[in-house]
Amino acid sequence: MVGGGQLARMTHQAAIALGQSLRVMAATPEDGAALVAHDVILGEHTSYQDLQAFAKDCDVVTFDHEHVPNDHLRALAAAGHVVRPDADALLHAQDKRVMRERLADLGVPMPRWAPVNDVADVVSFADRVGWPVVVKAARGGYDGRGVWVVKSPERVEPLLRSGVRLLVEEKVPLRRELAALVARSPYGQGAAWPVVQTVQTDGICVEVLAPAPAMSADVQAEAQALALRIAGELGVVGVLAVELFETEQGLAVNELAMRPHNSGHWTIEGSRTSQFEQHLRAVLDYPLGSTELTAPAVVMANLLGGRPGGPSPDERLHHCMARWPDVKVHLYGKKLRPGRKIGHVTALGSDPAEVRRRAVAAARYLRDGCDDQEGAR
Amino acid sequence: MVGGGQLARMTHQAAIALGQSLRVMAATPEDGAALVAHDVILGEHTSYQDLQAFAKDCDVVTFDHEHVPNDHLRALAAAGHVVRPDADALLHAQDKRVMRERLADLGVPMPRWAPVNDVADVVSFADRVGWPVVVKAARGGYDGRGVWVVKSPERVEPLLRSGVRLLVEEKVPLRRELAALVARSPYGQGAAWPVVQTVQTDGICVEVLAPAPAMSADVQAEAQALALRIAGELGVVGVLAVELFETEQGLAVNELAMRPHNSGHWTIEGSRTSQFEQHLRAVLDYPLGSTELTAPAVVMANLLGGRPGGPSPDERLHHCMARWPDVKVHLYGKKLRPGRKIGHVTALGSDPAEVRRRAVAAARYLRDGCDDQEGAR
Repeated sequence: MVGGGQLARMTHQAAIALGQSLRVMAATPEDGAALVAHDVILGEHTSYQDLQAFAKDCDVVTFDHEHVPNDHLRALAAAGHVVRPDADALLHAQDKRVMRERLADLGVPMPRWAPVNDVADVVSFADRVGWPVVVKAARGGYDGRGVWVVKSPERVEPLLRSGVRLLVEEKVPLRRELAALVARSPYGQGAAWPVVQTVQTDGICVEVLAPAPAMSADVQAEAQALALRIAGELGVVGVLAVELFETEQGLAVNELAMRPHNSGHWTIEGSRTSQFEQHLRAVLDYPLGSTELTAPAVVMANLLGGRPGGPSPDERLHHCMARWPDVKVHLYGKKLRPGRKIGHVTALGSDPAEVRRRAVAAARYLRDGCDDQEGAR
Repeated sequence: MVGGGQLARMTHQAAIALGQSLRVMAATPEDGAALVAHDVILGEHTSYQDLQAFAKDCDVVTFDHEHVPNDHLRALAAAGHVVRPDADALLHAQDKRVMRERLADLGVPMPRWAPVNDVADVVSFADRVGWPVVVKAARGGYDGRGVWVVKSPERVEPLLRSGVRLLVEEKVPLRRELAALVARSPYGQGAAWPVVQTVQTDGICVEVLAPAPAMSADVQAEAQALALRIAGELGVVGVLAVELFETEQGLAVNELAMRPHNSGHWTIEGSRTSQFEQHLRAVLDYPLGSTELTAPAVVMANLLGGRPGGPSPDERLHHCMARWPDVKVHLYGKKLRPGRKIGHVTALGSDPAEVRRRAVAAARYLRDGCDDQEGAR
């Protein structure tokens, strides 16, 4: 797996059960996965030489992020390496303009959008759909980076000056955000987890509610079918996360990711097959596992680095474990930095509201060292 | 963790979630845990020098087997290392004579027994309890090794000649075997999982049924209280497995193990807290996790190396995953050898008989490459 972050770290955990050991290509020995995997190769994912050295003796090369240059993926495949998902598929997770064009061809519901080459493109688009609009970098953004809500034409110029390829999308009036997580094997087998609701703060996912509360069976089936169709049409192998807006007019595709995804961390305990195991099954061409829920309600809350001071992280962990002995804690081995995802917690149960309160309170306690139940609604 | 087998391998998986990385002392680089852990020290657990080199910079030293010489444990502690469980506790899992003497002092129900120094000791004991009797090596046995069912005095002489310290026990007419798995922290907190039934073939555990079917709440509570009491009296820190005989007269303690144990592998998916996470929480002095079941019925079946020939192990795994997409497979990275534990499978559900059939059929398929449902009662 190219990339040594928490996704590779948790994929290694899943690989161990399958009798495998994940070879990880990490940028530094302190990367989350590099701390725990046996087989670590240090290298830069932008260096073809490093990628080649890494891919040697790998059965399959896969990824914990989208940032390997597409040409390098093609070169690896041409050199005989098995790359899953492949360059053709992964391009749609790397380049939002390519993704929008392709999804438009497929007739997939999504926000209105347009490519941006100059300020006039944004202005004419906004005249059509109304201000504000959402300008996005076609490549390289994540967790809210590379996304700008733009209220007037003068904000566009500085973005264009940075030289990044841009697109513009309408700002969809959304009820909530959802994610449809599926997996697809090279053989073409597909598997879908129940659709989840994702809760964002400042563009960063902070909670995932599984299954999405108060969702009709029709919308659930529509979202799953849409994600499986996209996986098939794009030739995805591995996990595909389809981030969705739920609006008055129905579903609209926001983003795609072709790897284990934050919206699927709940599957470690909450589904019979975790997204990490499923991704491995898929890229290794094994039959996919059951995506059944293990409890009626599962909530994941991200653990973000909080303000310094107060009880030490270890002390917080002690108190969290004592107070919520059934909440599962996942720490990524990262150094604390305010706002950084350093872990997550998962709570399971039968009452969605209670489960959510428990997960959020535990994450809050770990973050802030205080237990503000009021904030944990 | 001293010892690089599957217990260390699975403990490493649990350590990753806790933000830790398990340092493993393995005998060879091919040991199951050595293949997947980042921090592997090769060494012999009988060498104090190797142990000392290993223990350097460890927060806590713990074990995946009982075979580290007790004097070495004492020396490590004297040199300032934190050893959990400590030498005083672990002695009872290392030496069956010491264990029997101590449990007798505590009034714990167990088979009648006697130390053996010569043939006459066995004869006079058998005259009292009846032939056959069970002669055991006081130290070093496991999985049926070091245990001999002896029908007549002439079988004792060769055992004595081997120079091993022996004891003799009555052959208890048992209904079934049970295991009570508990954990205890240095702080004295205790946690008990539901009592399970273990099914043995030739002295090797092949199935574990959780919870033990058709068990009264009284017997369940008695077994749990007994195991927690033993953990407390012996000063165990970490997981304690108490192997029990269920007889017409009630419960009797067979063996003790002070580490994660085969009878607890089902807890990985079947309990909110796995025995591996719990062992780490205990030895690291964190609050213990919830031992709640995640499904009404959980069955673990060991995967033993089968006869060579037939479909390849990889082909068997494919078919097993395709047929039972909800059975969880755990492979230990070991080379196949007939009768060797190379992995296990876990099935979960609501109907104990159906869950057992599913687990046993999947394990059988992986072992033999054929699907003899008839054998999977």
